[in-house]
Amino acid sequence: MTAHAPPKPFTAGDYTTRMARALGQALHGGLDGMIVAPGPDLVWLTGYEPTAVTERLTLLILTPRLRPTLLVPTLERPDVEAVTGGGGLGIVDWADGTDPYHLVSELLKPDGQFAVSDSAWSVHLLGLQAAMPQTRYVALSRRLPMLRAVKDANELYRLSIAAVAADATYDEIVGWRFAGRREHEIATDLARLLREFGHEQVDFTVVGSGPNGADPHHEAGYRMIQPGDAVVLDFGGLMFGYGSDTTRTVSVGEPSLDLVRVHDIVRTAQQAAFEAVRPGVPCEEIDRVARAVITDAGYGERFIHRTGHGIGVTTHEPPYLVHGEDQPLEAGMCFSIEPGIYLPGRFGVRIEDIVTVTGSGGERLNNTARDLRVVG
Amino acid sequence: MTAHAPPKPFTAGDYTTRMARALGQALHGGLDGMIVAPGPDLVWLTGYEPTAVTERLTLLILTPRLRPTLLVPTLERPDVEAVTGGGGLGIVDWADGTDPYHLVSELLKPDGQFAVSDSAWSVHLLGLQAAMPQTRYVALSRRLPMLRAVKDANELYRLSIAAVAADATYDEIVGWRFAGRREHEIATDLARLLREFGHEQVDFTVVGSGPNGADPHHEAGYRMIQPGDAVVLDFGGLMFGYGSDTTRTVSVGEPSLDLVRVHDIVRTAQQAAFEAVRPGVPCEEIDRVARAVITDAGYGERFIHRTGHGIGVTTHEPPYLVHGEDQPLEAGMCFSIEPGIYLPGRFGVRIEDIVTVTGSGGERLNNTARDLRVVG
Repeated sequence: MTAHAPPKPFTAGDYTTRMARALGQALHGGLDGMIVAPGPDLVWLTGYEPTAVTERLTLLILTPRLRPTLLVPTLERPDVEAVTGGGGLGIVDWADGTDPYHLVSELLKPDGQFAVSDSAWSVHLLGLQAAMPQTRYVALSRRLPMLRAVKDANELYRLSIAAVAADATYDEIVGWRFAGRREHEIATDLARLLREFGHEQVDFTVVGSGPNGADPHHEAGYRMIQPGDAVVLDFGGLMFGYGSDTTRTVSVGEPSLDLVRVHDIVRTAQQAAFEAVRPGVPCEEIDRVARAVITDAGYGERFIHRTGHGIGVTTHEPPYLVHGEDQPLEAGMCFSIEPGIYLPGRFGVRIEDIVTVTGSGGERLNNTARDLRVVG
Repeated sequence: MTAHAPPKPFTAGDYTTRMARALGQALHGGLDGMIVAPGPDLVWLTGYEPTAVTERLTLLILTPRLRPTLLVPTLERPDVEAVTGGGGLGIVDWADGTDPYHLVSELLKPDGQFAVSDSAWSVHLLGLQAAMPQTRYVALSRRLPMLRAVKDANELYRLSIAAVAADATYDEIVGWRFAGRREHEIATDLARLLREFGHEQVDFTVVGSGPNGADPHHEAGYRMIQPGDAVVLDFGGLMFGYGSDTTRTVSVGEPSLDLVRVHDIVRTAQQAAFEAVRPGVPCEEIDRVARAVITDAGYGERFIHRTGHGIGVTTHEPPYLVHGEDQPLEAGMCFSIEPGIYLPGRFGVRIEDIVTVTGSGGERLNNTARDLRVVG
């Protein structure tokens, strides 16, 4: 793996710009503002990530009435003050035993409509709805799904080096022994390699051998890997705060003709979908292209998930490459392309790269070989 | 640390009983049922914990109209079927590109009122509210806060051995060097020890040295620990699925008279609060007792958080020992008692044990020495 320079830190100006852009988009969308609880949106907007997401209300409030304001529990105020974005943020704290929803009600338009971050806990939304019965809410990802979708240069650089680290992990693991080892041992190896190559967080290490590969979300279990198995390897996490996610399917020893054939179909589908990427093409078109290849080959019923998902400060976010999503691709968007075929009781095959949209097409961030690799 | 036998697994019958109890409590509370998204309530009710909590809807539905039913994304169906509680559960799956909220609307009473798990994502609650405009929702912890509060024998056993492991961690770390090392190094040691003593998950490792100890939620930073520092050590996680959480404050070398005095006040407050524990006493009374000791000593303004929180499948849950919480204690409840005094710019002191309510009083699960320990 080539050494890469660490990314430049995001600046207070980056956060101020993101908050202003978010509020602007909300207002243009007919909303009165945006409220954001701890989670990826808050990290992206402010750089602030509380130690833990708890029942204590922490809430970023973006409205035209006041400067960006973060409501926090009193005992977490020093943490917020220490954060990069803190300079441009107003901070309001509330003490245990007082009612934070009442405090919010003094800051929001009483009959306003607000976007609320998707992963905000329901207990908090219900608290706000009760304190301000005339307010209305829409999910941030429904109304402003593309808020974080177009990445800037610093974000693209982070996604690229996360992909390089994931590729290095794959290139290393395929030289190691698979036969006679258990899935969870390979998973542990994958996690360790991701960290060694620079990830600060590992989100998933799927090792689906033989029939387990036919379950797209099987993680890794105690099954002993056998000669002749197909093994789906799907792993990723965060590096410098940005995600990686790649999948390859390997064969333990010589593959069966069926595996060769199914793998070839998936590879063709993945390549066709990749070649369909360019600005202006609707997301669902990428799904349609991948699905057409698999359906034409007779496996349409066995491709049981969408073709891909966006990636950024999370490993799963808009845009989704799925039937019904007519959002046009834009330069700077990043997402997975990951068709698969799943044969219950037998095996599964999936091939996945992170792809970014350029001015004229697509560019893969993952670049390990996509042929059916034979491992020992 | 004495070796303890691993706990018996929870049985399908345990889960069936919990789901029936939950539904019964909801109906008695005037509700039409309960909906539970992935998180601690779902783990407690079914044993099922998806690989990741995502934008794809997974929802347990408890209503008198049908047997307990888990709505899951199609690609996660095999995971659910593999789970202990699966036997008694109906499973309904939905495929990418279809509308899961519409599916839920066919299962719920159209004008019903339902408890919803606190940490359910707002995007899902808003989806349900939009699909079923006549339904109403209340937060599970608001309407049925004590659902998981009274622990059974198996749960108490798990909490006990988690506490024993946390105590072993403390007893080990105080023999190690503090002066000249950075907070995050001690935090790393604490995490490793917790795992060595059996934790499968570490949730927090607070090391607040000197002035950092005055921020109750300071985690651990790059500050070099100095002779003369007070150091707050607050750590915990999950063992066999149940939480640990204990705090001690140590002195690096001989303590100042101020530290000795403040520590003694906190210890007296913690002891008084512990002695006030018995069935029937309101939660807020425990907070009042601890606070009275600290207020009488002149530090009331410097005790800036509640006295404690429940613990179980999470390290933070009802009952809360806080002013205004009139819930009477019941035998089998488990919670922290953790008064503290925080002197900005100087130091902080906190002492915390997990306590369970017995038939006639309280019993500490943490039993390391509570005097001001001098470390090197």
